[in-house]
Amino acid sequence: MSEYIETLDTGQSVGTVQRQVFTFGEAGVGLVLESGRTLAPVSLAYETCGTLNKDGSNAILICHALTGDSHVAGVYREDDPKPGWWEIMIGPGKPIDTNRYFVICSNVIGGCMGSTGPTCANPRTGKPYGAEFPVVTIGDMVRCQRRLVESLGIDRLLAVIGGSVGGMQVLEWSVRYPEKVCAAVPLATTTKHSAQAIAFNEVARQAIMADPKWNGGDYYESGRPEHGLAVARMVGHITYLSDESMRHKFDRRLQDRCELSFDFEADFQVESYLRYQGNKFVDRFDANSFLYLTKAADYFNLENQYGDGSLVAAFSRAQGRFLVVSFTSDWLYPTYQSKTMVKAMKKNGLDVSFCEIEAPWGHDAFLLPNDRLNALIGGFLDRVSAECLSGGDDAV
Amino acid sequence: MSEYIETLDTGQSVGTVQRQVFTFGEAGVGLVLESGRTLAPVSLAYETCGTLNKDGSNAILICHALTGDSHVAGVYREDDPKPGWWEIMIGPGKPIDTNRYFVICSNVIGGCMGSTGPTCANPRTGKPYGAEFPVVTIGDMVRCQRRLVESLGIDRLLAVIGGSVGGMQVLEWSVRYPEKVCAAVPLATTTKHSAQAIAFNEVARQAIMADPKWNGGDYYESGRPEHGLAVARMVGHITYLSDESMRHKFDRRLQDRCELSFDFEADFQVESYLRYQGNKFVDRFDANSFLYLTKAADYFNLENQYGDGSLVAAFSRAQGRFLVVSFTSDWLYPTYQSKTMVKAMKKNGLDVSFCEIEAPWGHDAFLLPNDRLNALIGGFLDRVSAECLSGGDDAV
Repeated sequence: MSEYIETLDTGQSVGTVQRQVFTFGEAGVGLVLESGRTLAPVSLAYETCGTLNKDGSNAILICHALTGDSHVAGVYREDDPKPGWWEIMIGPGKPIDTNRYFVICSNVIGGCMGSTGPTCANPRTGKPYGAEFPVVTIGDMVRCQRRLVESLGIDRLLAVIGGSVGGMQVLEWSVRYPEKVCAAVPLATTTKHSAQAIAFNEVARQAIMADPKWNGGDYYESGRPEHGLAVARMVGHITYLSDESMRHKFDRRLQDRCELSFDFEADFQVESYLRYQGNKFVDRFDANSFLYLTKAADYFNLENQYGDGSLVAAFSRAQGRFLVVSFTSDWLYPTYQSKTMVKAMKKNGLDVSFCEIEAPWGHDAFLLPNDRLNALIGGFLDRVSAECLSGGDDAV
Repeated sequence: MSEYIETLDTGQSVGTVQRQVFTFGEAGVGLVLESGRTLAPVSLAYETCGTLNKDGSNAILICHALTGDSHVAGVYREDDPKPGWWEIMIGPGKPIDTNRYFVICSNVIGGCMGSTGPTCANPRTGKPYGAEFPVVTIGDMVRCQRRLVESLGIDRLLAVIGGSVGGMQVLEWSVRYPEKVCAAVPLATTTKHSAQAIAFNEVARQAIMADPKWNGGDYYESGRPEHGLAVARMVGHITYLSDESMRHKFDRRLQDRCELSFDFEADFQVESYLRYQGNKFVDRFDANSFLYLTKAADYFNLENQYGDGSLVAAFSRAQGRFLVVSFTSDWLYPTYQSKTMVKAMKKNGLDVSFCEIEAPWGHDAFLLPNDRLNALIGGFLDRVSAECLSGGDDAV
């Protein structure tokens, strides 16, 4: 069932955005998760922009990163002026051109931006799930997205595109539903977390769980673990930048002072920036969701799940075309990890383009303006459209 | 005044270790710190091994890293079997040969391993200083070490050697007291923290201060902020390893299980290891000391302090010989930072040897067995002894 919510005119930026919620499993069937537990009902908050063509062949699914949401493009109205998180990439005449493509982006399950997650009411108790929420996987997220896409009358996606944890979802789509995807664009991502990436997530989780207000995940009435969540975000934030980008942005510049304070105030701009990022995050995100989403990312392991330990075997299931992009200064998902996946794809004879983009901005680079990335994605979609779109561009 | 405590026979490992405490400023004079505040009295816990020669020219000062202590070499007795932290480097016939050199290592001020720090009684109140302890700098630490060295009848050190934050102390010695140091060996260190290094320290500090038990630094009666300190240590610990070393050590191996738990227990060995390291650290270290020592490291800025922003100008004060060593996988103090200091030394015509050692173990590499490092330090000290020791080795 697709419940209509709002049609929002974004004017110049991306035309009409449809903001909706798709729900299934109200009768209790829901989704049997990879853990073996059942989740029901399941709601996905999603947005669409552009127009689906008659045969439903011009749809592109965008998968958001760890703490993202479904508001991927466009500006709603004056009272909510924040543009979508990939506004620079999606819109009329942009690389993901909403004059040509129908763009969908849904919030992942386990999240706290409108889809079913630990903040939602547990039907068994009527209270928020909290730590009663089942652990979900990237595979579970993608299976929900598949249900949503089917409900929209789309049998096969023209492309699935996403960076970071969104890129994991792209990879999952390409291997789990190979016949349902013409093309896949995993950006700044990996087929499995390194020990170091797991370590950073674990420290972030421990920071949340060390906060007495976390209270075993049951805090929705007693008050949220804001301090723990802020520290968790600060840890994550360092991994999204790079040594070089932090030097450019902050170096050792002092914050609002000419001399060192000789106390524990924020002397340096980088300290003040991290504190600000931590506090800002607390306003928009739920601590339990952060635990669940980082766990899903840590669990993701394409070669174990689909190839019995072999990435080549895992990608033997894939079809279609791939554009894989990494960034030189991304040390969270370094280029060597993209190269490993590209090699495994090529060993299966897949049509894969790979580019490592020179960029100093660290992992976040995939979200920042980059002419090279624009040209790569735009050009790749042109080719995919020519090869896969029924009747070419004119079908829209 | 030097207060005698214990002479400990370590048997085969390093001969006799003298464990002592040096105190000055009991009458209230103490040390005027770089912050302008006064610290009095000041005690330094220190250990020595080997024998000081007649003219006091064979003394080597070892500077410990962030959370280290004065127990640098030797094994005390059966009831305390933990060897000194640099036992592999220091002892009879080892690179820092206690048959030839008189080795000194003191705990830094601000620490909690016997020297004056926030856990000590504030003479004004009779209670532990806590957050009343003044912020100290690397310069303040070194000035105390100088007082200790003088008290031992040593006018000029044959060498000052240390890694990481210990390396900062070495650099400080070489520029603050150039005529008092024949040779300096800064290992795996930097002349100033990068924004990224400050960021990691700030997250660690925030983790401590977010723990309600921290209580503004006043917790010595009410109970320590163990959770916050454990998280802080976990953050730090990641920066001491490397992507590669964590892959070697842990990869994605599971801890005590064959399948994922689908809960928030430690699934992966790396998670279990970090939790263990965090909890172990809490047993031996004080949270306030951690705040003060990381702050001192962040404040260290040789070029600002001594060169008005120019590292070349700062090193124009230095004399003597340098051996600078970095490690390929050290991303906390990457090689480019060592190269910057070496260039500034060379521009001043200083006698400097530099080596980047190929090692996968990250920042911690300087503490691990490494034949190359042994050969470099042993050879360098041979040369320094030949050039600086009165009458050569026979003077001992």
